Amino acid sequence: MPSTVFAPAELREGTLRVTPIGGLGEIGRNMTIFEYAGKILIVDCGVLFPEVDQPGVDLILPDFSPIRDRLDDVVGVVLTHGHEDHIGAVPYLLRLRQDIPLIGSSLTLALVEAKLKEHRIQPYSLTVSEGQTEKLGPFELEFVAVNHSIPDALAVFIATPGGTVLHTGDFKMDQLPLDNRITDLRAFARLGERGVDLFLVDSTNADVPGFTALERSIGPVLDSVIARAPRRVIVASFSSHVHRVQQVLDAAHANGRRVALLGRSMVRNMTIAAELGYLKVPENVLIDYKKAKDIPDDKIVYMSTGSQGEPMAVLSRMANLDHQIEVGPGDTVILASSLIPGNENAVYRVIDGLTKLGANVVHKGNAKVHVSGHASAGELLYCYNILKPKNVLPVHGEYRHLVANAKLARDTGVPEANTILAEDGTVIDLRDGVATVVGQLDLGYVYVDGSTVGEITEADLKDRRILAEEGFISIIIVVESATGRVVVGPEIHAKGFAEDESVFDDVKPKIIAALADAARDGIREQHALQQVVRRTVGRWVNTSYRRRPMIVPMVIEA
Amino acid sequence: MPSTVFAPAELREGTLRVTPIGGLGEIGRNMTIFEYAGKILIVDCGVLFPEVDQPGVDLILPDFSPIRDRLDDVVGVVLTHGHEDHIGAVPYLLRLRQDIPLIGSSLTLALVEAKLKEHRIQPYSLTVSEGQTEKLGPFELEFVAVNHSIPDALAVFIATPGGTVLHTGDFKMDQLPLDNRITDLRAFARLGERGVDLFLVDSTNADVPGFTALERSIGPVLDSVIARAPRRVIVASFSSHVHRVQQVLDAAHANGRRVALLGRSMVRNMTIAAELGYLKVPENVLIDYKKAKDIPDDKIVYMSTGSQGEPMAVLSRMANLDHQIEVGPGDTVILASSLIPGNENAVYRVIDGLTKLGANVVHKGNAKVHVSGHASAGELLYCYNILKPKNVLPVHGEYRHLVANAKLARDTGVPEANTILAEDGTVIDLRDGVATVVGQLDLGYVYVDGSTVGEITEADLKDRRILAEEGFISIIIVVESATGRVVVGPEIHAKGFAEDESVFDDVKPKIIAALADAARDGIREQHALQQVVRRTVGRWVNTSYRRRPMIVPMVIEA
Repeated sequence: MPSTVFAPAELREGTLRVTPIGGLGEIGRNMTIFEYAGKILIVDCGVLFPEVDQPGVDLILPDFSPIRDRLDDVVGVVLTHGHEDHIGAVPYLLRLRQDIPLIGSSLTLALVEAKLKEHRIQPYSLTVSEGQTEKLGPFELEFVAVNHSIPDALAVFIATPGGTVLHTGDFKMDQLPLDNRITDLRAFARLGERGVDLFLVDSTNADVPGFTALERSIGPVLDSVIARAPRRVIVASFSSHVHRVQQVLDAAHANGRRVALLGRSMVRNMTIAAELGYLKVPENVLIDYKKAKDIPDDKIVYMSTGSQGEPMAVLSRMANLDHQIEVGPGDTVILASSLIPGNENAVYRVIDGLTKLGANVVHKGNAKVHVSGHASAGELLYCYNILKPKNVLPVHGEYRHLVANAKLARDTGVPEANTILAEDGTVIDLRDGVATVVGQLDLGYVYVDGSTVGEITEADLKDRRILAEEGFISIIIVVESATGRVVVGPEIHAKGFAEDESVFDDVKPKIIAALADAARDGIREQHALQQVVRRTVGRWVNTSYRRRPMIVPMVIEA
Repeated sequence: MPSTVFAPAELREGTLRVTPIGGLGEIGRNMTIFEYAGKILIVDCGVLFPEVDQPGVDLILPDFSPIRDRLDDVVGVVLTHGHEDHIGAVPYLLRLRQDIPLIGSSLTLALVEAKLKEHRIQPYSLTVSEGQTEKLGPFELEFVAVNHSIPDALAVFIATPGGTVLHTGDFKMDQLPLDNRITDLRAFARLGERGVDLFLVDSTNADVPGFTALERSIGPVLDSVIARAPRRVIVASFSSHVHRVQQVLDAAHANGRRVALLGRSMVRNMTIAAELGYLKVPENVLIDYKKAKDIPDDKIVYMSTGSQGEPMAVLSRMANLDHQIEVGPGDTVILASSLIPGNENAVYRVIDGLTKLGANVVHKGNAKVHVSGHASAGELLYCYNILKPKNVLPVHGEYRHLVANAKLARDTGVPEANTILAEDGTVIDLRDGVATVVGQLDLGYVYVDGSTVGEITEADLKDRRILAEEGFISIIIVVESATGRVVVGPEIHAKGFAEDESVFDDVKPKIIAALADAARDGIREQHALQQVVRRTVGRWVNTSYRRRPMIVPMVIEA
């Protein structure tokens, strides 16, 4: 993947080494390694969700190889917030060393602990909050409040004798957030005065001009849709979006409706958020979904998962009439959510399915029911101007986002040489305020599939893509070991190629003839005979059908 | 697929039967059948492009079964314009009866004839233009100019004693189009006065509020991007978008640049468009791409295909450095094109690849370089109000688009009972100004894969999806026919499951044991033994790996 791999020199004394190993050139699996004086600090440890050309893969992890042999040097993992792309790989890291301390805000740690419980891991954790400072090995940390689409997100300032770093995590700068907890620009100003040698900054929306709209602008829209809804209302959103759910609860309450939570992760996360006080549940609003049936249709709101068209989530199942709540005419469905690139077809399929059942579907395409959780270009300019960082490393984004973010930095006066366009595995050394790229590691994707981690390879995925496009044909032939004479077969079976296996009657004599030729030429070795069969069938299928299925020949001696 | 299938009654004398067999509930394979007095008229005959869950499929055709036994009754196929989703299935229809007359405008027929030439079919064709009337069997036709993202598009008015129909084809209402050929609302008004019993109307943008922007608004943007480009400019667009290419030629010319066309379909279509006078090529602008290398970088514009991220098209190959034009720093790439849902990841991958090579990538996300070819809600309201149709059948769209279009019709006063929400295969009878749904045919997708048409089934696609997600494990065992004793195997091979086949050492003794048990129970039949193997391996793989690959057991007697 990386352009040119080269090994970094040994880390010199007094130098801080920064190596992002996930989240650059992709939206997901965010993870950065900081090394100073033999000790390692990690910021975030997330997962990436697979794309269409990675079929069957459940999750993609960062490649832990740069720290695999150094686990005892790790002083801790700072988790900036509780989204999967920042905490999802923690269980896989802790499988390697269970007592690595986790550092994060109270909501973040509660969410990661719930996840670890499913993996039967009890972590060592240290709860921190904004303004707090901590020292982990040689790393002096200060935590700064930032505002995002989940409460209690933190940026982290890291000071070492080699240099200082500010890592934003994911953030935006909503100036009127629901919890009044704004991104702390005063702290940014103060840290800027002190001097930030390297600024790691969220790039997700760097190519979006202007400013991200206020989360609270959605409330009145939800209220008016719910007020006019003649029957049931179903709202779908991310199950960690506490403030979005808060606004649904408030709008339902204002309209005299009860709310039932649907979906395992929605129930789990909102229970945690309510217990910790992040979600303020109006009295007598929540109701168990099993009891919701007894409530009149115009007095209920279902708050559900599945806003990205995930096939097994509540909303998709409703669209397929495969859920106990049968959507019908007069029902209103609100997708109060983003539309992540790659999910369009799945989401539109759900919208079409619900529309066909008679529902009125409200989504960000036809109403203001979603705002992003990331800072747009205008907000990022504020950051650069108030912080005045010496060097900038755009993180968290596809390559085009990193480039757009670097341009914003330059526009505010950061010299071009000091804006670093890195990728996963780029090694950056920081010393005396100078950031230098000193290496490029060769890192791969680590695929989780079922209970296996890292066993599925790129070659397997290539095979899967061929199988998906073309199916396979298997040919079995048993030959007499003494003579090489065909005694059974060719038996031919195919999957994903054609239903009617009589199409293969055509090629069987060709295989027999090719093997007879091979025998005449003295070819007896199994692999060579299989090649003969593969070539014969391959040529036939390409000529007759203009297709290239996988051909799996097996010549067996008996 | 369809909700409830029921066969229509026999067609009564004096009734016009209308059956859309493609394009409703999908964007593509548009095709409608009109039947009167035993004769059949077809409007459009397009293809649909497959989605991710239809892997390996090249094209999807309408299901021709309603006319397959009635081909001699077909009096002609009217083609409203030259896009693939309206003409792409013509070769497959003409394979069934080669002398079905094709009726269309001169550009439309030139494009379909070029396509048919590749299939070695010489069609019978009748060129028509706006204002012209023709009689085909019992169908009186009048053609009406409409404006779209390809020149020379036509709506068709169909009059029979059973009733009158206006079919828009694809259209918008650009009031200042490049060729001054506007959608002829005067004709719509006149036909409305005469009486339109059924209005088939493009729904693609019915859920987009307001009005589609002018095509000519793109020209100044292209001009300013090209004027500021320091090196080469590469523009990608659909290869049939004559007016978009026209604006690129004009902007290049105004900036003293030559233009080289890249991509087979771009060269073919623009040659046709120029020959017929639809593309006005400024003198001394076009240059063969082979000679373009000799021109200074700041004097050339490449006009290419691949705007949807198609992996084999020019632009993707450039992004992968797999094209003779090596994109580098200072080059400018303009995607003057739409972003069709489902193509996002492929397109963003191309944008990221080009950005990484150093190119400045301009696209509809960051500049006004694309407008749609379809009428938005505002334009559709004009149509309904000027036409005042008795009945409305929204066509060309996903279900949500059809619903949005039906709502617009109702908003202008068409009674709800007269707006028909149909799907592919819905049979509508028209008589005395009344439109009635009289049947629902059971139609399927017809898949083209390689040189096969209709041989790949839904079961094959299901197998392909399983193979893609999970790969397969094949187990071969040779048993002695007399005793049932295993003489060879189990030989186990897998694809897309795991690279290291030693993982199967674990399960081999289990298979041997299971077969021994089966032998003891007197099980000897091949299929039953294979089931034993399948169950044994399936249980093992699910327990050990939490995965469900396809298991292909083969027990052979020798």
